[in-house]
Amino acid sequence: MEIIQAVRFSPDGTALRIIDQRALPGKLVERDLRTLDDVCDAIRTLSVRGAPAIGIAAAIGVAVIAAAAPEALTHLEFRQSLAHAAETVRGTRPTAVNLPWAIDRMLAVLGREHVNRDALVAALRVEASAILEEDRAMCRAIGEHGLPLIPGRARVLTHCNAGALATGGMGTALAPIYLAALEGRDVSVFACETRPLMQGSRLTAWELERSGVPVTLLADSMAASLMQRGSVDLVIVGADRIAANGDAANKVGTYALAIAARHHGIPFYVAAPTSTVDPRTATGAAIEIEQRDASELRAIGGIATAPSGVATYNPAFDVTPASLITAIITDRGVFSAPYHFEATRP
Amino acid sequence: MEIIQAVRFSPDGTALRIIDQRALPGKLVERDLRTLDDVCDAIRTLSVRGAPAIGIAAAIGVAVIAAAAPEALTHLEFRQSLAHAAETVRGTRPTAVNLPWAIDRMLAVLGREHVNRDALVAALRVEASAILEEDRAMCRAIGEHGLPLIPGRARVLTHCNAGALATGGMGTALAPIYLAALEGRDVSVFACETRPLMQGSRLTAWELERSGVPVTLLADSMAASLMQRGSVDLVIVGADRIAANGDAANKVGTYALAIAARHHGIPFYVAAPTSTVDPRTATGAAIEIEQRDASELRAIGGIATAPSGVATYNPAFDVTPASLITAIITDRGVFSAPYHFEATRP
Repeated sequence: MEIIQAVRFSPDGTALRIIDQRALPGKLVERDLRTLDDVCDAIRTLSVRGAPAIGIAAAIGVAVIAAAAPEALTHLEFRQSLAHAAETVRGTRPTAVNLPWAIDRMLAVLGREHVNRDALVAALRVEASAILEEDRAMCRAIGEHGLPLIPGRARVLTHCNAGALATGGMGTALAPIYLAALEGRDVSVFACETRPLMQGSRLTAWELERSGVPVTLLADSMAASLMQRGSVDLVIVGADRIAANGDAANKVGTYALAIAARHHGIPFYVAAPTSTVDPRTATGAAIEIEQRDASELRAIGGIATAPSGVATYNPAFDVTPASLITAIITDRGVFSAPYHFEATRP
Repeated sequence: MEIIQAVRFSPDGTALRIIDQRALPGKLVERDLRTLDDVCDAIRTLSVRGAPAIGIAAAIGVAVIAAAAPEALTHLEFRQSLAHAAETVRGTRPTAVNLPWAIDRMLAVLGREHVNRDALVAALRVEASAILEEDRAMCRAIGEHGLPLIPGRARVLTHCNAGALATGGMGTALAPIYLAALEGRDVSVFACETRPLMQGSRLTAWELERSGVPVTLLADSMAASLMQRGSVDLVIVGADRIAANGDAANKVGTYALAIAARHHGIPFYVAAPTSTVDPRTATGAAIEIEQRDASELRAIGGIATAPSGVATYNPAFDVTPASLITAIITDRGVFSAPYHFEATRP
């Protein structure tokens, strides 16, 4: 089984190689990006998406831009232009949390003393590789901690895309599924299409099919009917932010799945890196929910599907209370209520 | 307030006048249909949809075809050609229940003795008008029985389209809402878009907006989040078939809304004519659920939204158990568990 690799160095190390997610699910387009403009465009246009993948793309982007900088620059000019490039990349997506974090790590390397320019370029490359490898390890750790929760024959329902396309590794929610499939277990996935932006049908269905994991697509509204038929053994979703009490914000639609899972007595798991837990957010009530543009609900592919001026309710996320979550699968282990994430912090 | 009229006679009585629902929500196109081909095409292509509206369109269609038949036909030829036309209309949509029922009523008129051809044509026109008027009265009766369930300030969530566009009158689920608005009450509607065919955004949002009832559109997956915010006072949906025990089959997604409503302590009503109750169906378990074509989930407007060959779960309906239904609003009154619909049959 081959799990796709959303972001990485090109084999010769001179470029950031991405899977262009705008071309999915139609075709697999890999692009090698070498310039600041190309890296910024890729993040801005959602060619790269998923908070971890964006952070990695930014770090590798800075490293390859450094390697390709004109030899004529003085060491000071080189550092200044690189710092400017890093800040430009940071500005592409103001809300993605891993992006400023990755840029800060690269700037810290840039701020250190190096014997010469080559050593600095090498150090930046090492740091970007570390960010990628840490993410891959984080994904695998989530997968390994989640694996015991997957029964021998498992039909797993998931929402949105918390898979390889969103990370540097095998994803978060999909990591235990990939590991179960790698072990040869009989695991299959029901992917909710995830309106309005269809990450489930465009991305999750695509990456699972490509890896040979059996996948069935359904509209979000059909999940409860599927549970009623007894066709779902467990639910695993990702998370964008987890409060200290275990309340979890994730792509809108997650909460409805949690309620339906509880109604049918089906385990409901959230899988996310411990970095997603925000200890300063006491409960989900403190999580602000972004309202997205009405156009996402009024038209599809330029074709009007609703009256042009109709009011909309279009939240990006919803909050699933900890009481509906069976357990939270992290890279540091599986947690359940009452949550004490802090105890495990290094 | 003006409630749209989906199917009727044209003012001069020579045509079946329909709102072409394929043109919605983009524009209001009314079409006058006078020939067998036009009537059949309109039903087959979903220019007319909704079981009651299809039945009415078929009846009016037969009546106007009769009135326009060539004078040269003998009385026998006239009856034969009209019986053939009626059977052709019947064949356009094999599953719609009101269609064969309306055709049978028109054929019964055709089978009776009439003093001459003009009298037969007039009788067919009278029968078609009766079918339309009975449906209008049925809608209004549902509205009046449902009206006391609408609080003074009501934010109502609904699914799919069980409105004026689906009937000859003011709809079923929307009838109490229209009556509340006509009374000047502060009533507003949240319309779930209803994937995959978008009847909520294309039709319900359109007809409510046109009538001046405040409407807000949301994706199906967002309804639970809306309930969590305390923004929904009650849910009213239609039904395609109701079992003797009160289990109700309706457009897929209804069941998930019922579970979420129960979770939040929100009343969940089904509104439908008593003819929707099938006494031969003991419980919802006996209702067969149509699986629709995978193409509805794989592409939108010709644009691929999923891998081309991906497996799908695409049921047209789901079954909400009576235990999740607060009450069923019919043209003969409001029923709640344990259901004894039979007692009220005439």
